[in-house]
Amino acid sequence: MASPETLARMKAVVGPKGFIDDAADMAPYLVERRDLYKGRAAAVLRPASTAEVSALMKIAHEMGTPVVPQGGNTGLVGGQIPFETGDEIILSLTRMNRIAALDAENNTLTVEAGVTLKAAQEAAEAADRFFPLSLASEGSCQIGGNLATNAGGTAVLHYGNARDLVLGLEVVLADGRVWNGLRGLRKDNTGYDLKQIFMGSEGTLGIITGAVLKLFPRLRAETAFAAVPSPEAAVKLLRLAEAATGGLVTGFELMPRIGIEFVMRHVPGASDPLGNPSAWYVLIELQSGGDGDGLAEMLEAALTKGMEAGLVSDAAIARSDTQRAAFWHLRESMSDVQRLEGGSIKHDVSVPVSAVAALIERAVAAVTERLPGIRPVPFGHIGDGNIHLNLSQPVGMDKAAFLARWGEMNDIVHGIVRELGGSISAEHGVGRMKRDEIAATKPPVEMELMRALKRAFDPKGILNPGKVVRVE
Amino acid sequence: MASPETLARMKAVVGPKGFIDDAADMAPYLVERRDLYKGRAAAVLRPASTAEVSALMKIAHEMGTPVVPQGGNTGLVGGQIPFETGDEIILSLTRMNRIAALDAENNTLTVEAGVTLKAAQEAAEAADRFFPLSLASEGSCQIGGNLATNAGGTAVLHYGNARDLVLGLEVVLADGRVWNGLRGLRKDNTGYDLKQIFMGSEGTLGIITGAVLKLFPRLRAETAFAAVPSPEAAVKLLRLAEAATGGLVTGFELMPRIGIEFVMRHVPGASDPLGNPSAWYVLIELQSGGDGDGLAEMLEAALTKGMEAGLVSDAAIARSDTQRAAFWHLRESMSDVQRLEGGSIKHDVSVPVSAVAALIERAVAAVTERLPGIRPVPFGHIGDGNIHLNLSQPVGMDKAAFLARWGEMNDIVHGIVRELGGSISAEHGVGRMKRDEIAATKPPVEMELMRALKRAFDPKGILNPGKVVRVE
Repeated sequence: MASPETLARMKAVVGPKGFIDDAADMAPYLVERRDLYKGRAAAVLRPASTAEVSALMKIAHEMGTPVVPQGGNTGLVGGQIPFETGDEIILSLTRMNRIAALDAENNTLTVEAGVTLKAAQEAAEAADRFFPLSLASEGSCQIGGNLATNAGGTAVLHYGNARDLVLGLEVVLADGRVWNGLRGLRKDNTGYDLKQIFMGSEGTLGIITGAVLKLFPRLRAETAFAAVPSPEAAVKLLRLAEAATGGLVTGFELMPRIGIEFVMRHVPGASDPLGNPSAWYVLIELQSGGDGDGLAEMLEAALTKGMEAGLVSDAAIARSDTQRAAFWHLRESMSDVQRLEGGSIKHDVSVPVSAVAALIERAVAAVTERLPGIRPVPFGHIGDGNIHLNLSQPVGMDKAAFLARWGEMNDIVHGIVRELGGSISAEHGVGRMKRDEIAATKPPVEMELMRALKRAFDPKGILNPGKVVRVE
Repeated sequence: MASPETLARMKAVVGPKGFIDDAADMAPYLVERRDLYKGRAAAVLRPASTAEVSALMKIAHEMGTPVVPQGGNTGLVGGQIPFETGDEIILSLTRMNRIAALDAENNTLTVEAGVTLKAAQEAAEAADRFFPLSLASEGSCQIGGNLATNAGGTAVLHYGNARDLVLGLEVVLADGRVWNGLRGLRKDNTGYDLKQIFMGSEGTLGIITGAVLKLFPRLRAETAFAAVPSPEAAVKLLRLAEAATGGLVTGFELMPRIGIEFVMRHVPGASDPLGNPSAWYVLIELQSGGDGDGLAEMLEAALTKGMEAGLVSDAAIARSDTQRAAFWHLRESMSDVQRLEGGSIKHDVSVPVSAVAALIERAVAAVTERLPGIRPVPFGHIGDGNIHLNLSQPVGMDKAAFLARWGEMNDIVHGIVRELGGSISAEHGVGRMKRDEIAATKPPVEMELMRALKRAFDPKGILNPGKVVRVE
């Protein structure tokens, strides 16, 4: 437990504006949005600068105070929520929200960790550039958290994960030292690429305080909503579209009929763009910015080829920005509406793209056999092999009784994922939720290496302890 | 020094075919192609499998034998060459040259470390796919070495560095344990991304024995050779071309007039594609695979816009594969021909793209002031901010006297690079050549983190000791 003296020293660093210990004011920092994790904390510290983060960590290191770094508090695996002991402090990056620099000729944007993803996207747009990371929570999630968790989203197919969008980082280490690696270089082989260690470490190896992000040309999009007979056909259509368009496919998302029905039932104004129901759908997006690039014609040609090959039964191409937004709205609403259908058991899994069809087929069969009436809603980033294999409760079943079977359903789905060489956390991370499962199922060597890294970078174990990997 | 008993145990692991201790047979492994580093070794071990690499490292770890991993021996900074003591053994991956799997639907290629880059490219092509890494030494360099050094090359602008082309790795650790991370997943956030640690570590943290590589659609290219007034105009032309083509620019290489003259003087059949000499040139390549994508028209439109903006004075678009190859041959010969013009002092530097023009202008002025008559040949990957700022000797000067000023010229150029926030090793790595310079000029925190990593992964200091970072 942080002593009153330690907290007083920390308060002196951040000032009254940066210090919260009132229970009501702390509350929003202590719970995540699904209500799966609710913790306690000795205080919430809100530093306004890297120097303040450094000073706080020096005190924490000296006193052995455990620290939970927190960004926009949108994580889904409990990584940003303290444990129930009340011994920890939360270090919120929210006040560090300055856009430090935009270099349009170098295609880079330098930001503090607390800048929201949306603010970063808007800063890029204002300079006629594009920052591709795109997530449902982009209005409130923060760049620091995006990088600490190596966020995914809908643009990974073409632009990569959050990790791939970073040229430089600034990190405050466990003992308060500051590593300034804020470089805007496309190529730099002067030693170990240290920034890679901090990205995806979920605040357990260092606290990201700033970043240099890659920007891209701002492009025009063409979007289609297509009915496909199966996930297998969807994958074949993706490869066909990539070949036919020369690698311009920037989005490729799978949706099942039941998901579209959920959305139409619960989202006012949502409608099926196509005439007849289909078992499966994909949203396809191409991007280009060329004059006379024939983008719409290419998309149409790819869909026609897909129809000839029996991979597409019907399709609509968005004829306006409004229609394009409506297609995306169907996809983006698919997660939220599930809570309106009763209990939902979530899986964020990935397999090689060539195994996605097998994953869906096997998992749906296995969970249905275990619980007849269960309503699987497998959807998402099929182009990345990443399916949100969510399971809605049988109609009429008691919600709590269904949710009580969360672990049982996880075991079934994750077992199949492992057999197919996949990952049980494609984009959400480990946090608290999956810590013990990865420890039990990863090769022991891998866990040993993770622990070696944790010990090397956080020898006192004060950075988000008990998240991702347990050391002793 | 490895004792005769240790060597005998190692020989028993690899068999006679995998063991070389004859001086003449060892010779090709002991020197690199520029003759800058020439070492000695107790033996060259050539294991045929990961199990053999593991068994060798177990012995090395037990006995404290220093090990120098080696791939195609094409590195330019001495990382793959043992020191002069003769205490080290070389562990060559050359016999591990199997293509293990190609999954066209997942766009992945799984290879052993000793597969040459060219063999990997060809395996991709045979499946109608594309592996983008492209280097002058691709016929002999090996994937293991490419990844251990995070190789760059001419496709980084669009596809990224070698690091960005990898989904999974297999690594033998310092103590012989094997980490099998051969996953073919686009998204996997189950803990620290360990593969990132080994890539770019130049064999000092582990020995890469296999990899899962990303493949891409096979595309068609359109290539132009354009005269530009200055490096500054070249950068503006790049951004103009990206906007006009919708991000289809896959290659953008700068060449100075003197470089073109060197090539025409020494390469039979080489000729200037344009009528009148220009101070600077760029090679521009677009790629697409779309039917009716209008790629040639887009390239022409971009060049026309460039002319209107005063960024291009003349340009030729390749009308055949032969002509396209001839354009690339001018660029690819530019490094080799320099040795035919006497001594050449090399720099592999990068800066933010927005600072490339300033870098070239300041560096050329500074070295010319120091040594009138010196002939700078700045060329290369301007789209990545990576310039090979090579300096040819004044005509008629004694070669040895010129080369004796290597360090002095490095100091001038690297000093300017640092002032511009750049890197003194953009793509070649650190090895032996730049170890002391990075230690003297990087922030101390960064060197401390590198040493912490080295100690955590190689506590006995037997993996390529003395390369990249020195650990007391």
